[in-house]
Amino acid sequence: MKGAVAVKITEIVLTPIAFRDPPLLNSAGVHEPWALRTIVEVRTDEGISGLGETYGDLGHLERSRSVVDSLVGLDVFALNEMHARVAAVLGGTVGLDKHGLTGNITAESTVDRVFSSFEVACLDIQGKALGRPVHDLLGGAVRSAVPYSAYLFYKWDGHPGAEPDEWGEAVDPAGIVAQAAKMISEYGFGSIKLKGGVFPPEQEIEAIRALREAFPDHPLRLDPNAAWSTATSLKVAAELDGVVEYLEDPTAGIPGMAEVAAQAPMPLATNMCVVAFEHLKQSVELDAVQVVLSDHHYWGGLQRSRQLGMICQTFGIGLSMHSNSHLGISLAAMTHLAAATPNLNYACDTHYPWNAADEVVEPGVLSFVDGAVPVPTGPGLGVSLDRDALARLAENYARCGITARDDTGYMQKFDPSYERKRPRW
Amino acid sequence: MKGAVAVKITEIVLTPIAFRDPPLLNSAGVHEPWALRTIVEVRTDEGISGLGETYGDLGHLERSRSVVDSLVGLDVFALNEMHARVAAVLGGTVGLDKHGLTGNITAESTVDRVFSSFEVACLDIQGKALGRPVHDLLGGAVRSAVPYSAYLFYKWDGHPGAEPDEWGEAVDPAGIVAQAAKMISEYGFGSIKLKGGVFPPEQEIEAIRALREAFPDHPLRLDPNAAWSTATSLKVAAELDGVVEYLEDPTAGIPGMAEVAAQAPMPLATNMCVVAFEHLKQSVELDAVQVVLSDHHYWGGLQRSRQLGMICQTFGIGLSMHSNSHLGISLAAMTHLAAATPNLNYACDTHYPWNAADEVVEPGVLSFVDGAVPVPTGPGLGVSLDRDALARLAENYARCGITARDDTGYMQKFDPSYERKRPRW
Repeated sequence: MKGAVAVKITEIVLTPIAFRDPPLLNSAGVHEPWALRTIVEVRTDEGISGLGETYGDLGHLERSRSVVDSLVGLDVFALNEMHARVAAVLGGTVGLDKHGLTGNITAESTVDRVFSSFEVACLDIQGKALGRPVHDLLGGAVRSAVPYSAYLFYKWDGHPGAEPDEWGEAVDPAGIVAQAAKMISEYGFGSIKLKGGVFPPEQEIEAIRALREAFPDHPLRLDPNAAWSTATSLKVAAELDGVVEYLEDPTAGIPGMAEVAAQAPMPLATNMCVVAFEHLKQSVELDAVQVVLSDHHYWGGLQRSRQLGMICQTFGIGLSMHSNSHLGISLAAMTHLAAATPNLNYACDTHYPWNAADEVVEPGVLSFVDGAVPVPTGPGLGVSLDRDALARLAENYARCGITARDDTGYMQKFDPSYERKRPRW
Repeated sequence: MKGAVAVKITEIVLTPIAFRDPPLLNSAGVHEPWALRTIVEVRTDEGISGLGETYGDLGHLERSRSVVDSLVGLDVFALNEMHARVAAVLGGTVGLDKHGLTGNITAESTVDRVFSSFEVACLDIQGKALGRPVHDLLGGAVRSAVPYSAYLFYKWDGHPGAEPDEWGEAVDPAGIVAQAAKMISEYGFGSIKLKGGVFPPEQEIEAIRALREAFPDHPLRLDPNAAWSTATSLKVAAELDGVVEYLEDPTAGIPGMAEVAAQAPMPLATNMCVVAFEHLKQSVELDAVQVVLSDHHYWGGLQRSRQLGMICQTFGIGLSMHSNSHLGISLAAMTHLAAATPNLNYACDTHYPWNAADEVVEPGVLSFVDGAVPVPTGPGLGVSLDRDALARLAENYARCGITARDDTGYMQKFDPSYERKRPRW
């Protein structure tokens, strides 16, 4: 077991990929047929490689590429130094996303977003070097399986011009309940989240009520991605009193959320207004959010996400977990993190059921049992790349013609009058 | 390097020790001739042992002993679970210290204090298992040596009835300057801290001014251990404007500190009113302290202290490091922690020069070079027990008759009229 002196990074390979994504609706438009990610492989002089998964938008990909040279030669344990080098190379760049769904990005959080996938890959390597799962590098698992929620979307039956997908249409309460039934029967989820901000709030309230009736014991959440004014938010909050466990990003910005939180009967959650360490002070001062939806892709990787967890615990803020469209490397990382975060008391979000068909890791490690992912126990993240799948997904990327997620632009192809508005109601 | 499946704790040995301590004065009285610590040895089924060092007061020793059985059988990576087990066994106990110098202890911080030494020992084992220094388990060193400060005390020339010690008397500005000169010439410290709260504030201000004159470039700090009222604190703060880098615990309690902080021209530091995670929210709300003196013995070990560091960074609070009387295992742990904490921008406190003669670890690893301890690079903490020294110090403990630090009681032996007062001025 002894003997490692240094595990130095010799090469980092970034592979942008695209995988199929259904026409999921949200407050900014509709998901395009291809979702983008970047697969990160970090190789070392000890022959151990580590995996990371991150955003695939070209801006992020280019920022990630720009730091690679500065990381080669670093020891995989030198994560503080790695963070400093990423910051130095990025030099204050603010990497805004085109879709605006991941919130209030800053220069510091741009560093955290770029750093994250390299940190995850280095923890994967550390774990492999020690023969221990990544959660052991985060204090050890406090749960043997991590509960996720059924992440429901309003959606079209298929992309325009294509065959309907297996999920079918969901544009009203009955469609949402049917989608929930299918997803829960396949995955066993014990909590339900509905992505809202698509239809007028009354309709979405109706959908939530229908879910409550169909699933009386499932905790429910609604997330309109800041589509509402504070007045609308308060109206919805009053109507959903006692029905949802939290209301997610009803309105934009920390001051707006604080205004709603002051009167809303339920906790407010966010992955849009508090998405970087520098947002926490103001949020605490104003008691703007009661639940932070952590996301290691935002928050600088797994160790910093653990630190976020401790901040939430210290300041009496609840902790849940956000997801973007992702594949198995991210799912594994999310599961290790959640397993080792004692105060993560809500079921985590995941888009996984929407994208699992195009998985990039070898099958066998990740599964859903009663709505929860059993925590991988193998060394590192516990997952390995399916090289054929990677090649296929990289080919998709080259062919698909998409370089940055643009839900609004895609919607406008079919409805030229569609406008992005915040608030919309 | 691969192969570890589990490293289970098979035995934990706690050895209370006593080492010589000079008659150092503070706001509660005077140090007794013997300072107490407990040496913690954690043994595993892989044949690797780890070391920790913690308080030696009987209450703390008994609390530490009470959890041992619940930790045997645990994996050394299961630190979240270990913390939970310590909390379960202690069941809400509040472990107050008799001397009151380590501040506002709570049930939660009692758990952190008991957990800390076991966590450090487990990180020592983790590091040894991987062949990596402990700082690598905390994100990697960002400095190759950790600066400490010259920790000056008013003191008698020796314990009553004993020979004068090598440091001699320091009861006035000249004595303090002479002590500083000796300590700096031996250790090379680049910062100076004076433990105050012993003489009327005017005299201590005079000592600080004398230090400023003798050491024009050394950052200075003064720590009266909450001996002053808020009014006195503000008077001293005004007089020392531009002279000290921070004023430490001038007065008691978060509200009192906030009152002083609102007008004091320099940052206020604490290791007395914010000594547990549950104190941070109120302190941030009131902007009561601008520098937290972290101490892994208080704050639940090295990983939680890193989390404290991130909290301080996030909320714009400075970070320095506190020390009680300690030996080399603690010095090694403090040095690994400080090395891996990017925002620890002040020189750390250490009592080490006062107690180094009774060291319990094998010589050769820890040294002071220009006032800084080069960060150990060997596996784990990098230090090993000197078994002969341990036996000698354990014998001291058995013989010395002291079971709980009592600076006030010891002072009263020589001055029966001495009273503990807070504030005294």
